[in-house]
Amino acid sequence: MRRTGVWLLGAHGNVATTAMVGARAIAAEEVGTGGLVTAQDPCHRLDLPPIEGFVFGGHDVSATTVSSTARMLSERATIPPEIVKAVDEDLERIEERIETGTAINCGRAIEDRVERAFSERNVSDTVARLREEYRAFVTEQNVDRLVVVNVSSTEPPLSDPGRYDTVSSVERAVADDDRDLPASSLYAYAALLDGYPYINFTPSTGASLGGLKALARRKNVPHMGRDGKTGETLLKSALAPMFARRNLRVRSWEGHNILGNADGRVLEDEANEAGKLASKSGVLDGILDEEFHNRVRIDYTPPLGDWKTAWDDIRFSGFLDTPMKMQFTWEGSDSILAAPLVLDLIRLIVHADEHGEGGLQPQLASFFKSPLGVDEHDLSRQFGMLTNYVNRYEGIDD
Amino acid sequence: MRRTGVWLLGAHGNVATTAMVGARAIAAEEVGTGGLVTAQDPCHRLDLPPIEGFVFGGHDVSATTVSSTARMLSERATIPPEIVKAVDEDLERIEERIETGTAINCGRAIEDRVERAFSERNVSDTVARLREEYRAFVTEQNVDRLVVVNVSSTEPPLSDPGRYDTVSSVERAVADDDRDLPASSLYAYAALLDGYPYINFTPSTGASLGGLKALARRKNVPHMGRDGKTGETLLKSALAPMFARRNLRVRSWEGHNILGNADGRVLEDEANEAGKLASKSGVLDGILDEEFHNRVRIDYTPPLGDWKTAWDDIRFSGFLDTPMKMQFTWEGSDSILAAPLVLDLIRLIVHADEHGEGGLQPQLASFFKSPLGVDEHDLSRQFGMLTNYVNRYEGIDD
Amino acid sequence: MRRTGVWLLGAHGNVATTAMVGARAIAAEEVGTGGLVTAQDPCHRLDLPPIEGFVFGGHDVSATTVSSTARMLSERATIPPEIVKAVDEDLERIEERIETGTAINCGRAIEDRVERAFSERNVSDTVARLREEYRAFVTEQNVDRLVVVNVSSTEPPLSDPGRYDTVSSVERAVADDDRDLPASSLYAYAALLDGYPYINFTPSTGASLGGLKALARRKNVPHMGRDGKTGETLLKSALAPMFARRNLRVRSWEGHNILGNADGRVLEDEANEAGKLASKSGVLDGILDEEFHNRVRIDYTPPLGDWKTAWDDIRFSGFLDTPMKMQFTWEGSDSILAAPLVLDLIRLIVHADEHGEGGLQPQLASFFKSPLGVDEHDLSRQFGMLTNYVNRYEGIDD
Amino acid sequence: MRRTGVWLLGAHGNVATTAMVGARAIAAEEVGTGGLVTAQDPCHRLDLPPIEGFVFGGHDVSATTVSSTARMLSERATIPPEIVKAVDEDLERIEERIETGTAINCGRAIEDRVERAFSERNVSDTVARLREEYRAFVTEQNVDRLVVVNVSSTEPPLSDPGRYDTVSSVERAVADDDRDLPASSLYAYAALLDGYPYINFTPSTGASLGGLKALARRKNVPHMGRDGKTGETLLKSALAPMFARRNLRVRSWEGHNILGNADGRVLEDEANEAGKLASKSGVLDGILDEEFHNRVRIDYTPPLGDWKTAWDDIRFSGFLDTPMKMQFTWEGSDSILAAPLVLDLIRLIVHADEHGEGGLQPQLASFFKSPLGVDEHDLSRQFGMLTNYVNRYEGIDD
Repeated sequence: MRRTGVWLLGAHGNVATTAMVGARAIAAEEVGTGGLVTAQDPCHRLDLPPIEGFVFGGHDVSATTVSSTARMLSERATIPPEIVKAVDEDLERIEERIETGTAINCGRAIEDRVERAFSERNVSDTVARLREEYRAFVTEQNVDRLVVVNVSSTEPPLSDPGRYDTVSSVERAVADDDRDLPASSLYAYAALLDGYPYINFTPSTGASLGGLKALARRKNVPHMGRDGKTGETLLKSALAPMFARRNLRVRSWEGHNILGNADGRVLEDEANEAGKLASKSGVLDGILDEEFHNRVRIDYTPPLGDWKTAWDDIRFSGFLDTPMKMQFTWEGSDSILAAPLVLDLIRLIVHADEHGEGGLQPQLASFFKSPLGVDEHDLSRQFGMLTNYVNRYEGIDD
Repeated sequence: MRRTGVWLLGAHGNVATTAMVGARAIAAEEVGTGGLVTAQDPCHRLDLPPIEGFVFGGHDVSATTVSSTARMLSERATIPPEIVKAVDEDLERIEERIETGTAINCGRAIEDRVERAFSERNVSDTVARLREEYRAFVTEQNVDRLVVVNVSSTEPPLSDPGRYDTVSSVERAVADDDRDLPASSLYAYAALLDGYPYINFTPSTGASLGGLKALARRKNVPHMGRDGKTGETLLKSALAPMFARRNLRVRSWEGHNILGNADGRVLEDEANEAGKLASKSGVLDGILDEEFHNRVRIDYTPPLGDWKTAWDDIRFSGFLDTPMKMQFTWEGSDSILAAPLVLDLIRLIVHADEHGEGGLQPQLASFFKSPLGVDEHDLSRQFGMLTNYVNRYEGIDD
Repeated sequence: MRRTGVWLLGAHGNVATTAMVGARAIAAEEVGTGGLVTAQDPCHRLDLPPIEGFVFGGHDVSATTVSSTARMLSERATIPPEIVKAVDEDLERIEERIETGTAINCGRAIEDRVERAFSERNVSDTVARLREEYRAFVTEQNVDRLVVVNVSSTEPPLSDPGRYDTVSSVERAVADDDRDLPASSLYAYAALLDGYPYINFTPSTGASLGGLKALARRKNVPHMGRDGKTGETLLKSALAPMFARRNLRVRSWEGHNILGNADGRVLEDEANEAGKLASKSGVLDGILDEEFHNRVRIDYTPPLGDWKTAWDDIRFSGFLDTPMKMQFTWEGSDSILAAPLVLDLIRLIVHADEHGEGGLQPQLASFFKSPLGVDEHDLSRQFGMLTNYVNRYEGIDD
Repeated sequence: MRRTGVWLLGAHGNVATTAMVGARAIAAEEVGTGGLVTAQDPCHRLDLPPIEGFVFGGHDVSATTVSSTARMLSERATIPPEIVKAVDEDLERIEERIETGTAINCGRAIEDRVERAFSERNVSDTVARLREEYRAFVTEQNVDRLVVVNVSSTEPPLSDPGRYDTVSSVERAVADDDRDLPASSLYAYAALLDGYPYINFTPSTGASLGGLKALARRKNVPHMGRDGKTGETLLKSALAPMFARRNLRVRSWEGHNILGNADGRVLEDEANEAGKLASKSGVLDGILDEEFHNRVRIDYTPPLGDWKTAWDDIRFSGFLDTPMKMQFTWEGSDSILAAPLVLDLIRLIVHADEHGEGGLQPQLASFFKSPLGVDEHDLSRQFGMLTNYVNRYEGIDD
């Protein structure tokens, strides 16, 4: 069985924990594959690396453990307690492979919550240390391949990202100890340098810098991002095309999200929230031509725990300019929605890597709120891009 | 300018009235083309007959007038009063072309509401009379083409429709004065016999009988149905594929519709409701593979007038079988949603007729809850079928 | 500590089980008293019998056990598993005191589900057996007082209840083996005969017959019913007075309830549903003067388990007859909402009994959808009746 | 017929316009009295001044007219066009009695929108001018009494209002040309000085200053405020007592309001919003004892016009600490909800004035979000206070 190394940035968080618990529970045949896109047609026609062969490790800046996050989630009606119990030994083994991370330039809201973090003399040493940690994991765990996945808290948007538009500008910034490069980009840089595929499941900067995209192309390493499309935005990308194709003109689309997990707490900080909001509201602008009132709110409501409620109010006009409306609520567990997509992305990016597909991976657009390099936001057409990819490889894998 | 004859069955009803008011208001440049699918890409690339050239006539069994229906709708916040006023003279001229209809085998709920109806000695004479009325309209109005559109109240489903599976079985039934053939099918039969395209915007039987479909093929007349997809079902066909493709297993989908117009009153009758419910719930079964609880309710709530509220409650499970949910409300005017689609369908079926495309028209699937001859219920893919049709004709029309 | 015998009709059901689990968990100090009206002001000023002193027994016609119902509820996210575990031994002891019940005249939907039931030769013997069982429980458990509480599935409404308007008409019916007297009334009759207070938490007939009310007065036994007010109807009684007092005229109030427990399954049967619907829609008619469209639907949706979602759509008009609207959803666990009220009612009816208050207990009106003998449906005024009762006894109890 | 002078501050606004249109339409018997609390029991038992006898005048800082506001509202589906037409002559006559107002210390958002405003040399002259205008109106219109009502846009909260705690401190501030005293308080001061009852329907400071309350007592002038309770907060005061009395512990109550009128535009400004939010969230704190997450958001959504949608999400726990929830939407026209309350308040404060009841009027608490001098926020109990007042006067009025 192919062994796939999975290096999770934010390994103690809810999404990472749920992904690891789920992967081990699937391996133990404790649960089915509900929620996994790769478990069904069309993706199951590809020869994807088995989830059973995933070997987990990662970084985190919190002092908790995967086990205790898992228990906390099971108390909040997210993961069934018997499943946590069934994989608890696995989680303890994984814990030994989770290293202390760094939180450089992650914004005050995250930095204030850092419980442990390494600090090297300069950026250059930080990158060297990350590379060394990736390499050590690959060797010790004897994995065939390593995928680095960012599922840590949202950083504030980077101002003037254009200054890192070339590989050399990034290299120079690292050499010059430029303290503006955020942690997410350093993790990505270290990964790409040594040919490890990189997935950015968050709105953070990651590998979205021009210089890192160029590096990925040069090294022919697949990478993709950003910001996993799990709930309200997923619905927007499914519903907005209906309005557009039926010539029903949207006048206002108000989205109000309340959530109670750590992600919500970080987004209380306006700087960190900015990136998220841009990513959430951009989808509609990408589908609807008309001018309309487009607002997204994200509020932290502690009693909801890991659960998230989105309420959207959509006003539109149709024939004879008659005003009409639609409202919806979506209530799901953030981690439960995100975790299977993380596992899907790992399997699919390994497939791309195995077939020499470097650079951005547009066939993965349906997984992201802001798919890098893809203008298409219509969910159905994004799914079509994935199907086309599968069709292209059908017969080749065998 | 091409003159297109439009013969509306149920011409005094809300949908027909709104379609006529809208068409005339567009001709008078009183309103824009919001809500019209054919007013935008891709359809606007086709050489479609102009709405300004539509000449209306029709049948009805009620003693009201188009004008008074229009005024009633404007009092119920559906059509703006100034628009009704602007086209009122046109409506009076149309009224002269609306004939007394027939309501054979339409179910007790409709028959009880018939205010005027013709009755010929037998079915054969009824068909002869309908053909004569169609023909007279074409001649008198000097139209280039005639399209017959069923927008009348829903009939109960026909029992054992298989007995009308061949052209000859239909011919025999007409000759033998078979009183089971419903009005909607007689109207369709009369139209197809003389080569007039036929659209069934309702769940009634219409041209869905095997014998009528064969007749349309033999005469090479385009026709399509059934049951316009205007609201809740439109949403189902946009949302269900999202659940399916994301492997989120739907456990129950409850739809509760309340509406207050004549359509709602007729659907109070269980026999008439049966056809509607089958059509509304079938869409989900066509998209979702899993077993789930699927219920649709339609209730008559007079204070709503022509407005319709759908409330849907969707329970699904995802990763680790965690139960989650979505709820939505959709509030629109039934007529405002339906009328532009009626105009779109007329334009598109004329295009098909002009290009010799007889029989069922699968490219129109996105307009219908139960598209005849089409298994695809995914809205986006149905739109794709329309785009493919347009692409096929691009360049040819010129 | 006062020992209060609690005899639950439908002891294996969700409500009974949750009440027993909760009472024992409170006794063991495993949980607080959230949801208990008697745990706070004004009722806590009365000298009420302690929940810790409740001794449970009862009847049921199902072959399951309290323990397995409790476990089932804990799997459906109703009762926390650790609480079930904490009281499991108590439940096993209670199980020994649950007798096989009778389901005479309970309607087909219940009778079809009977797994075990006793059948005596005639009604007279049935009553004798019930009295004997009550008496045996009192003696064996050495309780100070016995309260009989009906929490079993809803029976169909009794036709022509006027025929049982006197004590002698009931006595004659029992003597003549009249098979129309439903189980709920036989249980009530047996209780009242021997001076045991009786609570009807369901819409079934119970002690609502004129003859039984007279018997209660004659014997000076307190009793009250019917149909616990736990969710949608509770909201109606809180909201409708607001519309009334503000002169906002309700035009339609649509209530759509979906639930997935055994109660829901029984209500699938139209005969059993009739009583429930009458009780649920009557509240509004008792508060609002105007004519309006008033409909309640209850649908069985298995995936919801013990959870219940009510969706209400309220249209009203205000100043200048402008139409406006309100919609709400209420999502709660039926058993969790009902169980504390059952415990409250037991405590309060024992208090009435201890102070010689026989017959109907209007101060308990706020607990019921159809409070016997009370026309007041305004929730706030009903609470006022309870406060007045408490004020009346304050100082006396000491 | 008693002639009541009504002086509206913000006379060109939506609420004032709707109140005047409605009053004149009632006088002309064009509409009924729906929405008027005083049109029904208990208030109709009092001898209240007739709405037909209301004579309107007022101040405004906008350059529009009542007629054009009325027409704008009728285009936005608020006031039926035929009603505006029926009273249009009345509105033109009223327009002549609307004076240019002042906007001193109303916050940037209002000041930026001032289209016309008078400016006297100093505060003392401003007050003198207001008094003169009130007096002139009374004389010219020959009214029996004058009521001053603030329905203008919301000012920012006054910092350190304690400095105006005595009559002399207010007098000194006026004499010293203290530019912190907001317009709403100057209008109130001028009214109270000459014995005109004052109603503050907004969250602005108005007569809530200690010095003005003392002045009203000294002069025995009735006044009341503040912030009319028309929608979301009305519901909170109806629903929260239900949770409280049933011991259902609220964990979070999220309220999200979207509205599209001028009021909404002013509230876009954070300074002006602060007062509104305090008033809206305070109601819950006044009813619920427990600690809970309490947030209110107000967002400006232009396409909604005068319509307002509140969405509230309430999480609570009950028995065994089980989490449950309620969500509601309330969709009404702000002006239609507010206007009848304004007319009610005028009638009731005149009644108080006629009977020598000076100072704050607690019996009017149910009309306000933050009833001055009243701690009771339970709607039903507030209605009870009004009923008690009526009962006290019953028989006396005759």
